Amino acid sequence: MLKKEDIAAAYREIQEAIVAGLTTLDGGALFEEEHWERPGGGGGRSKVIQNGNLIEKGGVNFSAVYGKLPEAIKKSFKTEQEEFFATGVSIVLHPHHPWVPIIHMNIRYFEMQTGDESMQWFGGGIDVTPHYVIKEDAIFFHQYLKKVCDQHHPDFYPKFKTWADDYFFIKHREETRGIGGIFYDRLTPQNTALTWQQIFDFSKAVGNSFLPIYTYLAHQNRNKSFTAEEKQWQLQRRSRYAEFNLVYDSGTKFGLETDGRIESILMSMPPMASWVYDYQAESGSKEAETLALLKKGIDWV
Amino acid sequence: MLKKEDIAAAYREIQEAIVAGLTTLDGGALFEEEHWERPGGGGGRSKVIQNGNLIEKGGVNFSAVYGKLPEAIKKSFKTEQEEFFATGVSIVLHPHHPWVPIIHMNIRYFEMQTGDESMQWFGGGIDVTPHYVIKEDAIFFHQYLKKVCDQHHPDFYPKFKTWADDYFFIKHREETRGIGGIFYDRLTPQNTALTWQQIFDFSKAVGNSFLPIYTYLAHQNRNKSFTAEEKQWQLQRRSRYAEFNLVYDSGTKFGLETDGRIESILMSMPPMASWVYDYQAESGSKEAETLALLKKGIDWV
Repeated sequence: MLKKEDIAAAYREIQEAIVAGLTTLDGGALFEEEHWERPGGGGGRSKVIQNGNLIEKGGVNFSAVYGKLPEAIKKSFKTEQEEFFATGVSIVLHPHHPWVPIIHMNIRYFEMQTGDESMQWFGGGIDVTPHYVIKEDAIFFHQYLKKVCDQHHPDFYPKFKTWADDYFFIKHREETRGIGGIFYDRLTPQNTALTWQQIFDFSKAVGNSFLPIYTYLAHQNRNKSFTAEEKQWQLQRRSRYAEFNLVYDSGTKFGLETDGRIESILMSMPPMASWVYDYQAESGSKEAETLALLKKGIDWV
Repeated sequence: MLKKEDIAAAYREIQEAIVAGLTTLDGGALFEEEHWERPGGGGGRSKVIQNGNLIEKGGVNFSAVYGKLPEAIKKSFKTEQEEFFATGVSIVLHPHHPWVPIIHMNIRYFEMQTGDESMQWFGGGIDVTPHYVIKEDAIFFHQYLKKVCDQHHPDFYPKFKTWADDYFFIKHREETRGIGGIFYDRLTPQNTALTWQQIFDFSKAVGNSFLPIYTYLAHQNRNKSFTAEEKQWQLQRRSRYAEFNLVYDSGTKFGLETDGRIESILMSMPPMASWVYDYQAESGSKEAETLALLKKGIDWV
């Protein structure tokens, strides 16, 4: 049986490795570290970078919290369980460069118990939101994810890719947040036919895929020149990102409703975003081309 | 008995008058007009201004819609009513100048019916969100609203002022959206001891107070010089405005859930907004002074 302390320790190491890798990749600003404690039990370590060479604003957050299950969580999970433990790593990076994508990664483990009864599961995912969709990059990204998934379970990639398409969907805009990726939740031995250790290994593999993926996507694009119009388009795309996070994202909504740590929850919000009234991309433009690719069900592999 | 056509016609006139007044006040850009139809019945007329002299982005929208009550509305109103009619004017203005406040106004009338049974009510309000709270302006604004309210009912100002404090509250930030104003909903003869005509007159008076109020607040501040730091603070305050609208505002949530006209619903979003990680206002700064005034229950009169 897995020990929750071991999961938290492994996640912390993943945070460390990613922060070290991103510090090198950025080459400008350093991550600032903050430790925080949760009044009800546990706490976290936030690592935030602002105004770097590559990253305009980004966070790599680790937390491990426990205690009495808040009423709001009981309600949403429809459970009478009393105690919970949750640990995870969450990342969002907003690059300066409009041709470098926004990226998000999360790995998490959750358990609840009352007396002898307990429930636990793993969740997570990684997804990319390009301001401009570049087909070769999207293919690279999805092929990479497929390889990671296939090493753990033949069904994971197709299932979790579809899950990401459905989850990262801005219903009122009828567009996906980006090119998706993978998203999964409540993985257990019952629904995967894997052992807890194997699911944990998959979770770590997702975490460890972050750095090579983002390093590749950044290097591919960070030295391209760009125009003021492309920068303005980036700010508009970021406003959609803000809409998704504030209106639909479960983690964000949940955090706001359960009085979570606001700065950590809203670390994902863009450093600058623009809402233009009734923007229409010119037909045939690269902006229109990107919008046409913000759809569910595209097979990038 | 009031006729709904007369209410819609009066609201349309108020929209017209406000657009004319704001065009003069701005002196730069003109409002662009769009007519739209609602598939289920009715439609609206949006008037939007962007990149004016005074107003960076603003909308003065009128709509009068009717038809079968959508399931989501039935649920939220806990009713079995079948038909509805709704008309209103909604305004949000985002000025360029950090010392000129954001302003919002809404007046609306709603009715539902099945067979012989019907329900109807008026709602609305007006509130101001200064990037920097200026006490004299806040006092002017609230005194003006009190005078308007007092002409219709002695209880309205204190009751609706408190309602606005409670409604325009960003719970997760523990701050009000701005200096409040008035907010009211479901006004009927039963709960006001006024006639329908008197409530309608109050609704129009709220609508007609918009232009003198905003003209005064704009003239007081539009010619002040400002710094780049003040502009950056404005962008941060706007991000709070975006958070309120996407997370809490009933009209916005409702519109998104019922497949309303997205551009009209999100017309309120700022043209540019900034989220800075864990911003702390320097103690004693004018930013800190503003934050200290974003509280419920301040008696500005």
